[in-house]
Order: sequence, then C-alpha cells, then structure tokens
Amino acid sequence: MKEVIVGANFPRDSEGKVYHMSVRLGEVANRILTVGDHVRARRIAKYLDSEEESGHPLFEQSSQRGFLTITGRYKGVPVSIIAIGMGNCMMDFFIRETRASVKGTMAIIRFGSCGSLSPDAPAGAVIIPKAGYCIRRNLDYFSEAPLYPQLKDKPYLFSGTFSADHEITHLLTTEIESALSPIEKEQGLLVGPVLSSGLNADGCSFYSSQGRTDTNFWDDNEGVLQEIVNIYPETHSIEMETSMLFHLANCAHQPIRAAGCMQVFADRIGNNFIRPEIVAALEPAVGKACLDALIQIEVEDEMDAAGTVWEPLFEKVDKSQDCN
Amino acid sequence: MKEVIVGANFPRDSEGKVYHMSVRLGEVANRILTVGDHVRARRIAKYLDSEEESGHPLFEQSSQRGFLTITGRYKGVPVSIIAIGMGNCMMDFFIRETRASVKGTMAIIRFGSCGSLSPDAPAGAVIIPKAGYCIRRNLDYFSEAPLYPQLKDKPYLFSGTFSADHEITHLLTTEIESALSPIEKEQGLLVGPVLSSGLNADGCSFYSSQGRTDTNFWDDNEGVLQEIVNIYPETHSIEMETSMLFHLANCAHQPIRAAGCMQVFADRIGNNFIRPEIVAALEPAVGKACLDALIQIEVEDEMDAAGTVWEPLFEKVDKSQDCN
Repeated sequence: MKEVIVGANFPRDSEGKVYHMSVRLGEVANRILTVGDHVRARRIAKYLDSEEESGHPLFEQSSQRGFLTITGRYKGVPVSIIAIGMGNCMMDFFIRETRASVKGTMAIIRFGSCGSLSPDAPAGAVIIPKAGYCIRRNLDYFSEAPLYPQLKDKPYLFSGTFSADHEITHLLTTEIESALSPIEKEQGLLVGPVLSSGLNADGCSFYSSQGRTDTNFWDDNEGVLQEIVNIYPETHSIEMETSMLFHLANCAHQPIRAAGCMQVFADRIGNNFIRPEIVAALEPAVGKACLDALIQIEVEDEMDAAGTVWEPLFEKVDKSQDCN
Repeated sequence: MKEVIVGANFPRDSEGKVYHMSVRLGEVANRILTVGDHVRARRIAKYLDSEEESGHPLFEQSSQRGFLTITGRYKGVPVSIIAIGMGNCMMDFFIRETRASVKGTMAIIRFGSCGSLSPDAPAGAVIIPKAGYCIRRNLDYFSEAPLYPQLKDKPYLFSGTFSADHEITHLLTTEIESALSPIEKEQGLLVGPVLSSGLNADGCSFYSSQGRTDTNFWDDNEGVLQEIVNIYPETHSIEMETSMLFHLANCAHQPIRAAGCMQVFADRIGNNFIRPEIVAALEPAVGKACLDALIQIEVEDEMDAAGTVWEPLFEKVDKSQDCN
C-alpha cells in the first residue's frame, strides 16, 4: 500500500479514488460493459474508437485488487469496459465503488460465461435472462453450533427473483441475434441459439452451490439441481455474478439499470464443455453486440464530459483559449 | 480460452490442470501460505530459498482467472505461496482446486488484512483468531417474492463458528510475537499488539454485511455491528475470507489444517486507516513469521518430491544415470 487512505467506512485515497477499484469521478462512464477476466475486457476494448476518432486517449486503470477499468468511446458514446474477476463479492465491490464514482443513471450490461441447465442451450448457445435468483451455501447448516435451527434441513438457500431491466434485455437480445446469424454461414461454426426469457441461478461457489459433486468435501449438494427444477423450472443458466448484479441494481437508490448475457461454456446436462474455436468466434461477436446495445440506452442525467477522461482534448484547448 | 476442457463437473484442461487456478498435481506443496494480492505474494516469495539453495527453480503460475501460485522451498521445506484475490467465492475456488491438486494432509496459513472491532487492536495490530463465523446478506429478504418468510426479519444471516487448527494457531502466535517485538526498537514504529483467542467475522461484502453505511443502496445494515456484539462479543476482526477457510477446512474429507492472521488496516471503532509506513514495516515481518510457522507443521502423507516442481534437479540427473 503506497497511498494514505482516508476513512474506514468508505475508504478513498488522497486523490478521492475508491479503495479496491482505484477510480474516481470522471473515470467511469454512465454506460458500462462488465466482464470477468482482463483478457476478454482488452479484446472487446479493441472495438472502441481510436484516439483520432474520439479526441482523447483511452483511459486504463488496473487496480492492485484485481479490477481493470477501460474508459473510452464507442461510436462516439462514452463507455467503460470493466473486468471484475469472479463471484458475488467482486460484483458487490464493483457495483458499490462504481456507483460512488458516477453521477446520474448507470446502465450496466454484463457479459459472462455460464453452465446450461436447458436442453435447448448446448455449449456455444447464448442466454439472456429476464431475471435471476441466488443460491447460497447455508454455512450455519455445517456448523457444530448452528444459530438458526429453523434452517437445519437446508444446506443451500435459494432467494426470490430479481428482474433485469426489460428495455436493455430486449435491445441486447436483438443485437446478439443479428450478430450471431452470419457466423454459421461465414465461418461454418455452429454457435447459438440465443435463449431469452429464462431465469439465471447465481451460486456462491463454482462447485457446491452449483451442484457439482466433489468427494473431497462434505457438501450435501446432491439435491441442488433437482431443487432448481422444482422451485424455478424456467432456469436456463447457472453461474456466479449476474443475479447479484440484478439484485444490487434493484436495491440502488441512485438508479442502476442492468441486464446480462452469457455464453454457455458448460453443458451441465450433457457434461460437455465449449471448444476453443467456438469461443474464438462467439466472444468477439457477442462483445461487440453488447457495445451496440449499450450505446442505444437512454441515460438520465448523464455526466458532462468536462473534466472527465473522455473529454475531447480539442475542447480542453478551446476552453483555455477562452481564458486568454 | 486456448485449451480444450474436459468435463463440466470438475473441469480440467488436457494437461490435467484445474480450470481456474491452472495448476496440477506436483505444482502445489502440502504447506501453503495464502494471501489476497499478487504484490504481497511476490514480496513474501523473496524469502524463499534461491535456486542454488533449493536445487530447483521457483515455480510460478499466474492464471487468467486471477490466481497466482508460487512454489519453492523455505529453509529447505517445500511451500506454496498463493494469491487468491478477495471474497469467500475466491476462497472456495482456491480450497477446492488446490485440494484436488495435492495428495496428503494440507496445512494452510492465511495472511490477510482486516477491520478491527476491538479497542485493543488499533490499525497496525495483528489478530490471530481461534475460530470464525460468517455474515451473509440474506438476499431473499430483499426480494419482492421471498421464498423463506421465516427469515423475513433478518437482512443478514450469521453462522455458527468454525475452529482454526489449534497447533498452527499457537505456532503462528509465537512466531508473529517474536517477529514484531524488535520493530519498535529498531525502526521506531508502533506496530502490534498481537491479539489471539478472539473470533473473526467474515462478511460477503466489504460494505453491507460489514456494517458500512452506503446511502446509495437499500441495505438495512444499521444493526449489523450491534448484532456482532450481541451474538459474538469475542469478535476482534472483520474481513471476507478467513472464516470461509476455516469452514471449508472443517468440511474437508481429505485433511486440511488451517489458521490465519490479519493486519488491522481499518479501525472500525475509531474510523482510522493504517498508514503506508506501518504496512511497509509490518507486512514483511508477518509474512516471514507465517513461513517460519508453516515449516514447523507436521504434515501426514506428505508428497514425495519425485516428479514435482520442487524436485531438486541433481536428483533427476541421478535417476537418469541409474538407467544407463
């Protein structure tokens, strides 16, 4: 740690940067595309406008705690692409620290990967959930001295559902469908189909709460996949972040509008995994479609470019000339 | 994704590497020191034996999903230093994927940072908990259609406790106490004291479940810190990973012995944050003390060096000569 940090309730450094993401007001745009890993973020960032087109250099901030923020413009509209790593805790850091770094409504699209629980969604399909719920390991169940005996028969707790933003979900579906349709014809690769209107299950673990069996641990998770079918038969996808995004967007007092899409990497019914050549064709198409959807979203009280990292340099020069 | 992945239940690549940490049998030692960030892992790795001393180069693997594994020897004993990022989900990935990559008993020491809830532990103190419990946001409470009305008054769920390994905790306390005592005299910096025998609270969020107030979100977390005092008055520290480590170690069928220590970064009572010069003195001393404790732990069925990344090169040469 190099910086002096101020305040233990919502720590910031002396430049006003939030503690874990290391960004401040004017470094994150109102429209955000969020992904898991840095490699995917950088690949999609290649679609952003060049410095010549946008009038400013691309902003890039890699934090010591694992977040990567890239801010620029896509077809002239300010956007951030943010890699957050894995799991609901990282989603929580991301949502709270960006909400504290942006003024006005935020629009967030998540682009992730998932397991599929639907025979209609093999590896290579894309799922765009209308809502999601969470599955969390009930740690108390596994304790020698549990606090809540009323939950003693529940090793995993399911939540109620949290809706995605309808308009963004619709825009995203349209853009992804038209991005995937030429791939089979042009590259001869079977990608898709695109499944919308199902539910996403978001587990706290890649293993236990997603019903993966692991003989090395006491998990009592043999019933998890059946419980999904019983409680939420509309479930298409299972992963670790997207329902948490919907949940926090629903809890936000300063508006956050959120939607998500996921490439099916693991077919949990057929026990198959996606092949690298399918990812190579699918990922850039879906990434670009996310950006195309993102810039169509109307955002209320959008931040003015003045003083931000997406302020065109010629505008700064004009202002300094005004002072002379 | 470059590699073909086999199996959706416990995915591995064609070389047998686990999916998120990208390591396999023979790349992780039975004794592990785990930390949050890469920078800390690399700083502590400077204490490992040189190639000349150990007879083999340091093994280093950085995974695309945010894990860094460094394996070598410390005073002749094989150890891994692994950076896992933040949050209970990352702890779960780490424990399950290393357990699948190691044979015999595993001994794990976590070295992290935390907030303090004890007036005896200001910023700069070190806390070594005897056990821990978890605080998880009850997502169902925040849903429009909750599934468990019996939990409708609980925005946060506390778990029962999970014990640390007594012997490792004792070794760690002794080593850290003797490492810190010269610092005040030699460097004129106030570090410490060392607090053992308290409890650690492990939240799913840096913000909501740790009782940090955030006016941007509906959190209903004003009562969390008081609930900690009421339910577990022995609580000294609050962070996001260590109780999850204890929990999973307690659930392991193949033995995992675990303990943890934490530098107090945030004094949650006085609302103060640690200063960079204190971290600069404290971190290397505690890191080295962790290694000194780790190598004293007796490990059952420890892996043989043959075929591992810590096999001395001269032994490999000897074997090939035997064949001639």
